[in-house]
Amino acid sequence: MRLRHKPWAQEKLESHPECVIMAPEQMKGKWAALFGNDNPIHIEIGTGKGQFVTGMAELHPEINYIGIEIQKSVMIDVLDKIIAKDLKNIKLLPTDGALLTEFFEQGEISQIYLNFSDPWPKKRHEKRRLTSEPFLKSYQDVLVPGQEIHFKTDNRGLFEYSLISFTNFGLSLEYVSLDLHASEMEGNVQTEYEQKFSAKGQPIYRCEVKFH
Amino acid sequence: MRLRHKPWAQEKLESHPECVIMAPEQMKGKWAALFGNDNPIHIEIGTGKGQFVTGMAELHPEINYIGIEIQKSVMIDVLDKIIAKDLKNIKLLPTDGALLTEFFEQGEISQIYLNFSDPWPKKRHEKRRLTSEPFLKSYQDVLVPGQEIHFKTDNRGLFEYSLISFTNFGLSLEYVSLDLHASEMEGNVQTEYEQKFSAKGQPIYRCEVKFH
Ligand SMILES: C[S@@+](CC[C@H](N)C(=O)[O-])C[C@H]1O[C@@H](n2cnc3c(N)ncnc32)[C@H](O)[C@@H]1O
Ligand SMILES: C[S@@+](CC[C@H](N)C(=O)[O-])C[C@H]1O[C@@H](n2cnc3c(N)ncnc32)[C@H](O)[C@@H]1O
Repeated sequence: MRLRHKPWAQEKLESHPECVIMAPEQMKGKWAALFGNDNPIHIEIGTGKGQFVTGMAELHPEINYIGIEIQKSVMIDVLDKIIAKDLKNIKLLPTDGALLTEFFEQGEISQIYLNFSDPWPKKRHEKRRLTSEPFLKSYQDVLVPGQEIHFKTDNRGLFEYSLISFTNFGLSLEYVSLDLHASEMEGNVQTEYEQKFSAKGQPIYRCEVKFH
Repeated sequence: MRLRHKPWAQEKLESHPECVIMAPEQMKGKWAALFGNDNPIHIEIGTGKGQFVTGMAELHPEINYIGIEIQKSVMIDVLDKIIAKDLKNIKLLPTDGALLTEFFEQGEISQIYLNFSDPWPKKRHEKRRLTSEPFLKSYQDVLVPGQEIHFKTDNRGLFEYSLISFTNFGLSLEYVSLDLHASEMEGNVQTEYEQKFSAKGQPIYRCEVKFH
């Protein structure tokens, strides 16, 4: 994702405390109170410009969404979509998805979405991949037992790596598509990257992985 | 695989008892003695015309191979290749791969190859797929613990199904390629179907799955 220089990004995010949570570690164990209801909470790590998470929030008012994105200059595009659509069931965390266990207690999260995560193809960057063992451990530590990661990507190497990583962690696959747009999947909300890559004719890979 | 009518197939197979084992249940526990050495035994279920299993036997004289194919009229093509190449480290079983536990004791087999297995796409035929739960159970019952299935196919639906089936059985993926011919895999021996489908530009899927 290209980084445009937006010095006003931080300021803009701070000016929307009803939606953007600048100090999420202070909310640990209190997310239901913050949303004002007991609906399940789903998070997306690496929202990019947020077409997916805002589209999901619009389609599923009975779910609370949290979007995590490390680039503040990208996250303001998500904020703009939330304001435009006047969505109440979504919060944004402009922070690093590696810190989940600082923000959430075990069982606070009911589902995790990873969409077109950065592939980090070099072996020495493996630990940065959102499907590497340390990340899986942190997902397990915040998810309700028996709940799932839903993962989409166009990147063959990352998907191959992730299937191996999931099964080595003892997780089981509940759903796999090796060409999502040729499969029958209802209610698929496309991400910005998904639209771009599928327009080029590349297959989109998707899976659902269950924690025990 | 098209069935040509070859009434002489049975007769021809019977005339090569040095290579074709017509009553494999009588060899249970005695395969090492039959091969005359303690080399590991690898089997392929559904050899088709046998380009893969004979190619492997040629490349790996330190391994014993057993090819299982239910269609006798197809298996004679494998026999012809073995005779032409004068291979000593391969036996053929013209029978149903569903009967493995009748032929082999636990630990007699060190690896199982499945190549371009019939997809049986209808849900009511699931039990016929060579990667369904009853087959996985039978593989576990004959394999040395910790050993693997190596599986290749062009069939997306079968590969998706198989990944789910493997992980639900508690197996872990050791290797996955979603485009074998674009990956760096050394020593890949192509099957007849593999050549046909990859010539059409279809991706070939491959994985290695470990039993515990
Ligand atoms: C390739 S983009 C995909 C964006 C979007 N999900 C889509 O499909 O269009 C990956 C995004 O993940 C973000 N990202 C990468 N690592 C992250 C991390 N550890 N925590 C939060 N966001 C991260 C990047 O800043 C980038 O915006
Ligand atoms: C689609 S062909 C592939 C042949 C070959 N492996 C290749 O890749 O070219 C599948 C083969 O598996 C055989 N087969 C199917 N089910 C089988 C079973 N239960 N036991 C043994 N062979 C079987 C079929 O007769 C057929 O020859």
